[in-house]
Amino acid sequence: MTAPFDLNGYVAERTRLVNDALDRLTPPASTPPPRLHEAMRYSLFLPGKRIRPLLCLAASEAVGGTAAHVLPTACALEMIHSFSLIHDDLPAIDDDDVRRGAPTAHKKFGEALAILAGDALHTLAFATLLRHQTASSSDIIVRVAGLIADASGTLGMVGGQVDDIAAEGRDDVDAATLRGIHARKTGALLLASILSGAYLAGATPDEERTLTGYGGQVGLAFQIVDDILDVTGDAATLGKPTGSDSKHDKATYPKVFGLDASRRLAHDAADGALAALTPLGPPAEPLRAFARFIVERNT
Amino acid sequence: MTAPFDLNGYVAERTRLVNDALDRLTPPASTPPPRLHEAMRYSLFLPGKRIRPLLCLAASEAVGGTAAHVLPTACALEMIHSFSLIHDDLPAIDDDDVRRGAPTAHKKFGEALAILAGDALHTLAFATLLRHQTASSSDIIVRVAGLIADASGTLGMVGGQVDDIAAEGRDDVDAATLRGIHARKTGALLLASILSGAYLAGATPDEERTLTGYGGQVGLAFQIVDDILDVTGDAATLGKPTGSDSKHDKATYPKVFGLDASRRLAHDAADGALAALTPLGPPAEPLRAFARFIVERNT
Repeated sequence: MTAPFDLNGYVAERTRLVNDALDRLTPPASTPPPRLHEAMRYSLFLPGKRIRPLLCLAASEAVGGTAAHVLPTACALEMIHSFSLIHDDLPAIDDDDVRRGAPTAHKKFGEALAILAGDALHTLAFATLLRHQTASSSDIIVRVAGLIADASGTLGMVGGQVDDIAAEGRDDVDAATLRGIHARKTGALLLASILSGAYLAGATPDEERTLTGYGGQVGLAFQIVDDILDVTGDAATLGKPTGSDSKHDKATYPKVFGLDASRRLAHDAADGALAALTPLGPPAEPLRAFARFIVERNT
Repeated sequence: MTAPFDLNGYVAERTRLVNDALDRLTPPASTPPPRLHEAMRYSLFLPGKRIRPLLCLAASEAVGGTAAHVLPTACALEMIHSFSLIHDDLPAIDDDDVRRGAPTAHKKFGEALAILAGDALHTLAFATLLRHQTASSSDIIVRVAGLIADASGTLGMVGGQVDDIAAEGRDDVDAATLRGIHARKTGALLLASILSGAYLAGATPDEERTLTGYGGQVGLAFQIVDDILDVTGDAATLGKPTGSDSKHDKATYPKVFGLDASRRLAHDAADGALAALTPLGPPAEPLRAFARFIVERNT
């Protein structure tokens, strides 16, 4: 009998790798323009779960690659996530003052610098991928960067955010619309995180299909739990005020399905994610542990 | 004796190529999310000079390539320029209401959608380069995309914009600081436009050096003339209110050097650009005509 997989140990070790790489790949606050670099670093290094980079690393390891090999791409994914948080928090969009237990970028640095720090992190993500993922062939880098660009754009993250805003205050949002919004707003980049790790590690087409199935389900579970925590969570633990979704009357799983049904849907999605991974065997253990963690987390 | 180069004819023909390609490469406003795509297209298709894509095409032709081959990259450059204009015009940054003779994106679509349309154009630029510049090798695409990412980031366009804002209202901005701001805010992407066309066309290292010399001088001339036109230009011809720089008390060539010396500096830079092109012979005629046009333009 093998010991149960130590997710905490795995996450602690891999998070350190990611944070060290992010520190190396982001310009120091001492170099010009210092205030811009400071704002970028401030947002990037607020305590975060590093879900996207960790999924990228774990996907690489699940198909026989290493964590170290995909670190630049994992960092690029976190830079894109961080840019999207900065812009989503702006007064004109979600108008949030607190993020990860600290003032949001525009509260700390002013709106102009927050907009530009988001833009700079967006660009830095692509520069990092294109300049630092040097251990991979150019063909694979082009494929991975194209995947991440598509996942971030109008058919992915930004498009989902636009529809999320458009759905605020509406009472006629059905399950399909809700799922479509979430699949693009958060699901697309989570799936791209998993697939980019897999591509860089040389996954077979079968492995890519397996991980696509896993990624769709784990992204769904993640978003449902995020919606639930906004209702039931503790602001101090979450590091941001709860009730932000209901303040904006956003389309969420609890609003459309109720809390109990939302919890069941999250568990179903996590179970689906676990079932999808069967062909990958023991190397996919970190990905399995993530799926379980996502539905059990309280932050 | 050969006929003088017909710049107007060249620009009209190449602009049509660029606009047709931009139309093909940008999602139709009829596809979801329609409002986002509409806002992106609105900003992208305001009447503009298409300087960056035209420089990219002309640089390709100057070293033996074609215009058609580099069109996706030329379009990506215009998408990046357009995203930067949308964000620079926002109330928190330059707070400009009119651009190219029409309401700015945030006046027309609201601030939230303007921010997100800028982000989506930024992503679309990289998606276009990585997915549509298919006639080139992946090695060259990675090099070109990395060049454009660097030119857009903290050491280029965004960093220059931050320092431009920081210099507002200061009376101690010297010539070196002013030149540094402009070299990054507009010069870096203009140079990247020229070099990306050259890289894609398979320029030799000597040709790259020649075009780097030209690009530095032509970018400088362009920015000085832009500063001059903000003082002396006609709002109706320019399509935007003049006096915007002095309203913000920005660091400009007329402010630091005076109008007469600024005009001389612009002509010196254009002469330098022309001198740099000597080794390229007749195929560089469009690039020469651009350098002359830039100092003679009144829009």
